[in-house]
Amino acid sequence: MRNFISVEDVQDINGLVRKALDFKADPLKNKQAGAGKRIGLIFLNPSMRTRLSTQVAAANLGMEAIVFNVGQDGWTLEFEEEAIMSGNTVEHVKDAAPILGNYFDILAIRTFPSLQNKADDYSELYIKQFIKYAGIPVLSLESATLHPLQSLTDILTIQEHFKEKRRPKIVLTWAPHVKALPQCVGNSFSQWVNAWGEADFVITHPEDYELDKQFTQGASITHDQDYALRDADFVYVKNWSTYNDYGRIYCNDPAWMLTNEKLLKTNHAKVMHCLPVRRNVELSDEILDGANSIVTQQASNRVWAAQAVLSELLKNTKG
Amino acid sequence: MRNFISVEDVQDINGLVRKALDFKADPLKNKQAGAGKRIGLIFLNPSMRTRLSTQVAAANLGMEAIVFNVGQDGWTLEFEEEAIMSGNTVEHVKDAAPILGNYFDILAIRTFPSLQNKADDYSELYIKQFIKYAGIPVLSLESATLHPLQSLTDILTIQEHFKEKRRPKIVLTWAPHVKALPQCVGNSFSQWVNAWGEADFVITHPEDYELDKQFTQGASITHDQDYALRDADFVYVKNWSTYNDYGRIYCNDPAWMLTNEKLLKTNHAKVMHCLPVRRNVELSDEILDGANSIVTQQASNRVWAAQAVLSELLKNTKG
Amino acid sequence: MRNFISVEDVQDINGLVRKALDFKADPLKNKQAGAGKRIGLIFLNPSMRTRLSTQVAAANLGMEAIVFNVGQDGWTLEFEEEAIMSGNTVEHVKDAAPILGNYFDILAIRTFPSLQNKADDYSELYIKQFIKYAGIPVLSLESATLHPLQSLTDILTIQEHFKEKRRPKIVLTWAPHVKALPQCVGNSFSQWVNAWGEADFVITHPEDYELDKQFTQGASITHDQDYALRDADFVYVKNWSTYNDYGRIYCNDPAWMLTNEKLLKTNHAKVMHCLPVRRNVELSDEILDGANSIVTQQASNRVWAAQAVLSELLKNTKG
Repeated sequence: MRNFISVEDVQDINGLVRKALDFKADPLKNKQAGAGKRIGLIFLNPSMRTRLSTQVAAANLGMEAIVFNVGQDGWTLEFEEEAIMSGNTVEHVKDAAPILGNYFDILAIRTFPSLQNKADDYSELYIKQFIKYAGIPVLSLESATLHPLQSLTDILTIQEHFKEKRRPKIVLTWAPHVKALPQCVGNSFSQWVNAWGEADFVITHPEDYELDKQFTQGASITHDQDYALRDADFVYVKNWSTYNDYGRIYCNDPAWMLTNEKLLKTNHAKVMHCLPVRRNVELSDEILDGANSIVTQQASNRVWAAQAVLSELLKNTKG
Repeated sequence: MRNFISVEDVQDINGLVRKALDFKADPLKNKQAGAGKRIGLIFLNPSMRTRLSTQVAAANLGMEAIVFNVGQDGWTLEFEEEAIMSGNTVEHVKDAAPILGNYFDILAIRTFPSLQNKADDYSELYIKQFIKYAGIPVLSLESATLHPLQSLTDILTIQEHFKEKRRPKIVLTWAPHVKALPQCVGNSFSQWVNAWGEADFVITHPEDYELDKQFTQGASITHDQDYALRDADFVYVKNWSTYNDYGRIYCNDPAWMLTNEKLLKTNHAKVMHCLPVRRNVELSDEILDGANSIVTQQASNRVWAAQAVLSELLKNTKG
Repeated sequence: MRNFISVEDVQDINGLVRKALDFKADPLKNKQAGAGKRIGLIFLNPSMRTRLSTQVAAANLGMEAIVFNVGQDGWTLEFEEEAIMSGNTVEHVKDAAPILGNYFDILAIRTFPSLQNKADDYSELYIKQFIKYAGIPVLSLESATLHPLQSLTDILTIQEHFKEKRRPKIVLTWAPHVKALPQCVGNSFSQWVNAWGEADFVITHPEDYELDKQFTQGASITHDQDYALRDADFVYVKNWSTYNDYGRIYCNDPAWMLTNEKLLKTNHAKVMHCLPVRRNVELSDEILDGANSIVTQQASNRVWAAQAVLSELLKNTKG
């Protein structure tokens, strides 16, 4: 694996999941794999789970992780080619990335979308510029439109819970929120479930809240949440902002919040969420504190997903 | 020791002090005790000494310490049960703490009081919620009303300096300051000296600047600083804000600042302060730069106190 | 080497460069030199390259590096003797530094100038106070008027590129910028090239943009950039603010920006810059992306310079 920024970087999803579950069973089974190697964790935006789970995963592999919060610890970066840098950005990624590529063996980047301009965000300029100029493997810690470490964790968590011979029914449902959020987690989960191909996959959201078709293709999409939930084995709850009139909050109908009553329509579905979750806005206390919620397990699994990906990327590091 | 948030978590104060002094004599004597263990240092508020001394202590025990500044690196947490999270908090401690409990073996938390509402602060909701939901040992790096790592250091430093057979006289004196500060250090020092029980303990402060009775019980309390200082062996200087009309600055009488002239009333008392100290407001240059000050030694001892506590908490970590 | 805050701390520049190049050839050749030793990296101002390269250098020597951002993670420091601290500073360096000196084996400090008061900045009060009170070796990560780790890297990079018997011609040229910047890099480069003594050294800048004479003595200084560039082997490009009417931007003439056309006057000069660089303001894309630029190599060499200096400072650490 050269980089890890989307499911397209993965040849064998089930193999990668198995690798992650092996690490869960024995975290230190490869404790020398990263000896003498360094990963730079570069945050253009805040992070808790992703940062901590990746630090833990790196340590389990014997790697040294160095965290750098761009803009807080250091500089504001420029990403546009040929920019005349007389404004607020103090360094171009063309200059910063090669140096980071010399200091580190793997570069991990978090960079959120602006939610101002869809074409810009979906071009994934920031993470692509890091890949272009760093010269070492690049790991996405969530980019403008995708969150692959989360999605690998999600597939892994589903596999841990579903042992029947048939295909599980997985529902991704939009939920209300008070802030305009990225589409990354929804896009990425869709891309991974579709690429995995071993589930019946339904996406439900209000009008105007589409995800990007390049990622959802293969899923059934409906505006009828009740219909979507029927017989679901897994319900993935997540808010995202509008797609066409980009990055806004239109409808914020509380009726879209999942409740125990709605869960009755499902096949005792396990409830998932990537966290952080706004309690009693996105998801009710009764669900989160109930027996169906697997959100803590899901977030805890982030370590093993990161460890599996890092152990693959390590194979492409220098000498 | 299951958690360390107050002296009540300690069975044998002198034993813990001895353990700390053993580490001071030989910092690496237990350098494998924490091998493969991780401590998360979660700061809801700033810290220098506490953060650095705990990092050093953890490293001396072979543990890996990961620092996370909540709200700066990441998210603003919600602590109220059943909150409808449509405001500024983005994650509930109920969701964050169990995951931190899975990523780490010990969780260390710093959380200051609001100084807005006494009942809220004294309920210690924040640190108690972490204990309730983390599922692993919790270490206070200073909470709303107590600062036990500081107090253990203080008792240790007193024991290093006092070798006579008789009971030392220890005076805790309020000092002026320009900002409304928590009562933690005063409360906690009082709680520890009283629990230790091997000193004559006098607290002196202006009217309205009480500490909480649950912690001061056992001490003599007077508003007459001159009287209190008489024959003192140790004078602990510290500002805190008002108690009844909570969290304010009333009197800020500079006459309460300790001077060399006042020290003459004491028995060549050693002068202590937890630092940071506002020079020439809380304590004069002449005292801090004089022979009686032991504040540097006291702050340096923070490492050994933290190391002793961590080595006890390690005994209650998983697998 | 007791401290490293200017070239005056170095007895043998070429010896130190050789040491650095040895580490470049074999980064882990001394991987136990710093075992059990700790370096505190204290940032009063932001940093990327300096912070990361020093962390990597420390790790290569087996040292533990702990980063602390003063004012962000912790406290605002007071540096004036006898200050009455009733304002915004919460701790005096007299109190903080000795404790840091007890927690760490080496203390590394970054502290920028105010650019408000030349005498204050050039007194180097901040870093001198750390040296005075820390009691352990102090390493400058860039101070108010000098940046010695950068300059050592610069000499090293020049030596890597120049293998002829004759003396190279080195030109330091001022460049336009949109912000008032410190004079550190220019001062320090001048001080080091002059102390090294193995080059013909020319400094060129507009009127009013002098550097400090104590550092430039020995160099030729001219306001005619074209004349300065003639036959240059190395052109070091850097902005700094005015000297006499201190810390301002007067002329910001874009004609001072280096171009390929200007490079034709040189002897195929290598172009250097300490980074970060404002593209198309300080230096054009055509230069930075062209064959003559060695800025990435230069920045990458920061690791080896830091490693050489740390290995020298380690010899003066306690026990």
